[in-house]
Formats: sequence, structure tokens, C-alpha cells
Amino acid sequence: MPQFLSTTDPDFEARFIALLGAKREDSPDVDHIVAEIIADVRARGDQAVIDLTSRFDRLDLTPDTLRFTPAEIAAECALVSDEDRAALELAAARIRAYHSRQMPDDASWTDDTGATLGWRWTPVSAAGLYVPGGLASYPSSVLMNAIPAKVAGVARLAIVVPTPDGVTNPLVLMAAQIAGVDEIYRIGGAQAIAALAYGTQTIPPVDKITGPGNAFVAAAKRRVFGKVGIDMIAGPSEILVIADRDNDPDWIALDLLSQAEHDESAQSLLITDDADFGRAVAAAVDARLQTLERRAIAGASWRDFGAIITVADMDEAVALSDRIAPEHLELCTADADALAGRITHAGAIFIGSWTPEAIGDYIGGPNHVLPTARSARFSSGLSVMDFIKRTTLSRMTPGALAAIGPSAERLAKSESLQAHGLSVRARLDRLNRGS
Amino acid sequence: MPQFLSTTDPDFEARFIALLGAKREDSPDVDHIVAEIIADVRARGDQAVIDLTSRFDRLDLTPDTLRFTPAEIAAECALVSDEDRAALELAAARIRAYHSRQMPDDASWTDDTGATLGWRWTPVSAAGLYVPGGLASYPSSVLMNAIPAKVAGVARLAIVVPTPDGVTNPLVLMAAQIAGVDEIYRIGGAQAIAALAYGTQTIPPVDKITGPGNAFVAAAKRRVFGKVGIDMIAGPSEILVIADRDNDPDWIALDLLSQAEHDESAQSLLITDDADFGRAVAAAVDARLQTLERRAIAGASWRDFGAIITVADMDEAVALSDRIAPEHLELCTADADALAGRITHAGAIFIGSWTPEAIGDYIGGPNHVLPTARSARFSSGLSVMDFIKRTTLSRMTPGALAAIGPSAERLAKSESLQAHGLSVRARLDRLNRGS
Repeated sequence: MPQFLSTTDPDFEARFIALLGAKREDSPDVDHIVAEIIADVRARGDQAVIDLTSRFDRLDLTPDTLRFTPAEIAAECALVSDEDRAALELAAARIRAYHSRQMPDDASWTDDTGATLGWRWTPVSAAGLYVPGGLASYPSSVLMNAIPAKVAGVARLAIVVPTPDGVTNPLVLMAAQIAGVDEIYRIGGAQAIAALAYGTQTIPPVDKITGPGNAFVAAAKRRVFGKVGIDMIAGPSEILVIADRDNDPDWIALDLLSQAEHDESAQSLLITDDADFGRAVAAAVDARLQTLERRAIAGASWRDFGAIITVADMDEAVALSDRIAPEHLELCTADADALAGRITHAGAIFIGSWTPEAIGDYIGGPNHVLPTARSARFSSGLSVMDFIKRTTLSRMTPGALAAIGPSAERLAKSESLQAHGLSVRARLDRLNRGS
Repeated sequence: MPQFLSTTDPDFEARFIALLGAKREDSPDVDHIVAEIIADVRARGDQAVIDLTSRFDRLDLTPDTLRFTPAEIAAECALVSDEDRAALELAAARIRAYHSRQMPDDASWTDDTGATLGWRWTPVSAAGLYVPGGLASYPSSVLMNAIPAKVAGVARLAIVVPTPDGVTNPLVLMAAQIAGVDEIYRIGGAQAIAALAYGTQTIPPVDKITGPGNAFVAAAKRRVFGKVGIDMIAGPSEILVIADRDNDPDWIALDLLSQAEHDESAQSLLITDDADFGRAVAAAVDARLQTLERRAIAGASWRDFGAIITVADMDEAVALSDRIAPEHLELCTADADALAGRITHAGAIFIGSWTPEAIGDYIGGPNHVLPTARSARFSSGLSVMDFIKRTTLSRMTPGALAAIGPSAERLAKSESLQAHGLSVRARLDRLNRGS
């Protein structure tokens, strides 16, 4: 059974804080092993990657077989059904259309001193995308990571995906093809992150690494951060549904379960202004749980971290939602559009009962890589912005320097940075001499 | 003497790689101490901060004196000369004008299936800014960090600034006032970062922490990352000047020295297509070094990490510059505008001989917090974007769900996520029943 809370409970605040602070994930401390793996790859390059792949993935590679050949990719893609291919292509087209609108504009203007100011956006030159192997090898994640990079203009996009015992997921290769990925390597774990960050004889280094992974991959990404850019380190998935009584309890139950089935540490929360509706959803969850293939996982998540919170009105719902800062927020209420406008902290909002969160996981268009663990208070989902960077531009004229240079000189003096001041003064003196 | 390199040297590539890879900073490993400090502040709150401030800053505080009062701030600001105040106000106005243009637009559109998609930007609710004490207590850094936060709409902006032995820098308080900072605390070190991240009885927690600091501050920021957002961990400052012979060697020398004087581990590089000009700049640096107050620091930086590189032409200069990915890039050449357009990786570009880099440190308008250590390959300087976050929005209609839902269902099946598929299917079934 999930927790039932009501804002009228005398101990509500304490229980709500406990719910917010619940430690849902115990990451094993693998930092020491990961440090050794990275050092090994830096020292021995390809051979280290090959040895580690043999040990962890039970797969014997050579420098020539680290990378999938075009023929191998084509052969795997031929195994994909036409229906699956069409679904991936529709998803890719919609994700591409959404992310294409994210490209920001360059800017340049001249101010009243005559100074020209502005900025210019440029893509990262090379990016690497980690794709987990085995059960969590999701083709949808390939699309969600690779398409923003390609829309941004990344010239070289490499994927690493482990193939334990040589088993490949054809849909992952197909998604990579559709997204325009340039290189695919059959390696994983910390050794794959190290190879992307530092390069080997066969694998050129990249500038930015994104994509989800296990504890080893997360620890390796933290370690190579600075040498390359990384995306966020994602925690377990979460959903908050805010629903009034005018909903089918079964729909809401399935939306809650679609997070719970990801992972035993996933969290599914419902806020409603009708306690009876909350109980009806709980019953619907129980009924659906009987029939789910992943009922062990979904059941544990719902039992340990699920909660149904009854509020007096939607004002309370909005305030609690912003404290939760959910990764996914589904609004199934009358006038859901207006409610969405009152939310400040959320990774993605799904508006209205016809927008199940699963649409956003696959095909809506927005990215499904979103801030977890309350980090929507200060961060955003993956986007084109993660694959571009901004160079600021300034151009002074003699007149602009004459107008603002003396103030720069004064501030440099106040910070005891003499050469800073002199670099301005030398130019002002030339102007004053009129030459 | 700095290094002299030429692309025609037989060992150029090896020497250039050595220059790129030079380890300029040895950060002491203070992680263990910092972990203890953070744990102490989490456990004991104000009292831990007070005890640590007494120990490290030789300053005895109480919960009532942790924060500067309005009267104390006014008294300190009264010590600032009218000229300094005017310079800070001009700088603030220009920084505000530049950053105001960075605010991105929200978006919303309806696609051909009838789905409404878009996103909305919202500010971080509360931000904290670290300002170092002592010599590196720069009022310009207060403006550069605080103004983007306020332009972004951050409602609550707190500064922490240590005041060792009770010594305050009035210009820092004045800059904070001008920038619209809401709270100023006289604390520093890892204990200040912990207080901002976790809160104490007196200091409410924030969602994002920015600003430079020593090894303790940097280690503390790394540790609280995830609980709150942080900005980049900055390394030593760098400048690359690309200059042709039609420049005053003294101007270029002063520009190089204005980085070198920051720090013994700063790096100043010159690329020129005229070896004689390079030698003239080296001579001018030596002459200016005699007269600088900070000649010990600037001289060590120039001797250990400075370099003058002669290239055959500007094509070579552009290629080397992109490999360096400099924090600051000054272009003092004929047609510097066109040259700027050919650069891909740089934090900030200063175009033309009338734009000394020091203008950008203080008053140009663009931010002076910029990516160091080649990270301009994948990251950008501080901006309004660091204080806002994006929520993606989706709204399906029954028709949109009918159009794209079946593909989502298919992809969910291919990933063995049954509840995901069912959450779509339950709605499609309702449509098919026509009710």
C-alpha cells in the first residue's frame, strides 16, 4: 500500500518532508574501481578497453572490431520490423521538429558609445552518447540524446553501447541510424566513458558526454567532468499527477504505474482534491498491478515510495507541487492549462487527461531526459543548449574606449590590478595625444 | 623568459601539446576536511558556522551578527568615493543592459496533429553568491554574478563574503547594493557553502550557488552539487592574443600582463605572423614588468606559462586558437571582425586593438566569468541562463493521441514497458468506443 496523506492531518508537514527526503537510491561506492579503470584506459588505450570488455561483457574484441562496421549495422537494422521502424521514424521526426525550435539566435548591436557587443553560438565539435546494454537498452533514449546533438550541429557523434555476450539490440542501432549517429562502439562501463573522454588509438576523444548508465558509468562521468562536459547525473524517475474527480481512476493508475515499472526506486505521487477519488485510484492500481509483467518492480516502487495526497483545493496542490519540483507533472484537472501556468518548478508538464506521460517518453517531441530528485528547482531537461556554447563578442572604437575606459581604469585600481588599468591607460593616452 | 615557438620548428607539435597540457594548478586535497565541515554545518547549523568563522577568520559572531544589517551596509557604502561609486554604477548599467538581451522567449505552438507543444522559462527561486575575502575580494565579480541573477528574476539573492579579522571591503558591499542583492552574510569557506546549500536556523537554503573561491570553496561546491546547482569550477585565468605587426608592442605587452598579474598560474599567449613583432612584445613585457607592483606574480606566470608562437599566416592562427579554446581571445589584426567569425572555441572575443581585455573584466557588458582550461570547447560563460530553467509543455487532444499514440504504444512494447503502453491504450480504447 502507498502512503495516504491529507493536508488536514496534524502530522502532515512532517510526513510530507519525510516523503520529499526519502533516500530512494543507494549507489554502491565504486569510485576507487572506476579511478583504476580510467587510469588503465589512459595508459593502455585500446588494449585496456579490450581487456575490460572481455572481463565485464564476456566479449573478445580487437582494435578492428571495437566499432560496428556499416555492414554490421545494416544487418542488425534489417532485423527490425517495418512497424517498429516506422514508429522510430515518426518519433525521430517529432523530436527533431521540437528541438529545432530550441536553437537560439546570435546577437550583435552597437550601443550609444559606439561599442559593438553581442554573442555567437557554436556547436560542440564532437559528442559521445552512452547507451546502456541489456534490459535498460532503450532506443528511445538514443533518439532523445542523439537528435538534439545533431540539431545543434555536432559534426561527430559517437555512441558507446555494451553488447554483453555479443548480444545487440537491433532497435538501438536502428535508432542510431535514424538519428544520424556517426560512429557506434560495442563497449560500455567506465572504460567506455574513459575512452570517449581521453581517446584511444582507435577512438578519437569527444568534448561532451551524455546519456544514462549504472553506478560505474555515473562515477566515471563525474571523474572525467572538466576534461569534457557531461550532462546531469540522473536519479530514479518520478511522476506527480494532480487530478480532480472527473477522471477515470484506471487512466491515472496506469500513469502512476508507468513510472513505477521503471525501477523499484521510482516514485509515483498523486495529489487530488477528492479523497474518494484517491481511494479509487489506489484500488485501480492494485487491480492493474495483478496483470503487469513487471509487477514485482512496480509493486515495490508503489509500496515503498508511492503516495496519495488529499488537498483542500488546487492552490494547495500547486504549492506542494513546487516543493516537490517533479521530473514529470501530469495535470488532469478542469482548466489544466491555467493550472500549468501557475507551476514554477517542474521538468515537464503534461496537460490534460489526454496526455499520458508515456507520450512524452516516446513521441510527443520534448526531451525525456529530465531533472530528477528535486533538481527542477535549478536545472532543465536535455536540449539543443547542451550541445552548443556561446562566445561573447566586444568591439570598442576609440570613442567607446574614451567614454568607458576611465571607469574601467578606476575599477582596476580599486582591485589593485595595475596592468589591467595600464592596458586601458596606454590607449587613452594615445587618444589624448590625438595621434 | 617565456617560450618562443614557431610552427616551422621541427618539434612544434610536441611543444604545443606540452603547452596545452601544462598542469598550471596544484589544488591541495582538502576534500576530507570539507566533508567534515559540511557535516558539522548540517548537524549544528548556526553554531557550527560561528565556531568555524571564529577559527578560520578570527571573528566572533552570533546568530544576530551573521548577517550585515542595513545600517552596517549603509555605513560601509558611505566610505566609497563618489568616483568609485560612479564607476561601479556605469559598469552595472552596462552589464545589466547586455544581460537583459539574454532572456530567452517562451514558446507554444500547435502541430498538424492538434497537439500543443512548447516550453516556459522560470527563474531559480533563491541563489547564493560566494565572494572571496582578502586580496581577491573583487567588486567586479559581485556585479558579474549578481546582475545576471537579478535580470533572470531570482527573488532572493544572498551573498556570503568572509571578513577575516572583521575587515570588510566597502566596494564589495557597494557593488552588492547596486546589483540589488537581498542578504549579505559575513562568512566564508566551506562552511558558507554548506550554509547556503543546507540552510541554518538563520540562513535559509538556496537552490543555486555561483562565484569563485579557494580550494575549500571549490571542494565544497563539488560536494553540494546535486542538492543545489553550481556554476563551473574555474581554473586559473588565460588570455590568447592574436596580433599582426601593425600593433604597438607595448599595448599587447600590457594585455598579456593583465592576465599574468592575476595569479602565478595564469597563462598569457601571443600568436603572431611576424617573429620580429613577437620579439618586440617580449621586450615590452620585460620593460613593463620592471614597473609593476605585482611583478613577482606576473613575472612568474609569464616565465613559467607564457609563450609567443609565430605562425605562417592567420589560417594557422585560427587553427591553433581553436585547439587552445582560450578563455579570453584578443584579435588585434587587420580585419579582426572577419577573423572573429572564423573562431569556433573561445569564451570571449575582444575584437580590434582598441578593445583591451580589461574592458571585458569590468565594464564592456559581457560577463567576465568564463570557461577556463580549454572548457570553451563545451561550455559558456556565466549568463542569465544559469539562473533560469525550462519546463517543457505538452497537451494532446483526442485526435493527436489517435494520430501518434499507437506509435508510442509500439515503442513501449519494444522496450518491455507494458504500463507505458497501457496508459496510451486505455485512452485509445475509449476513443475507439466513441464515448
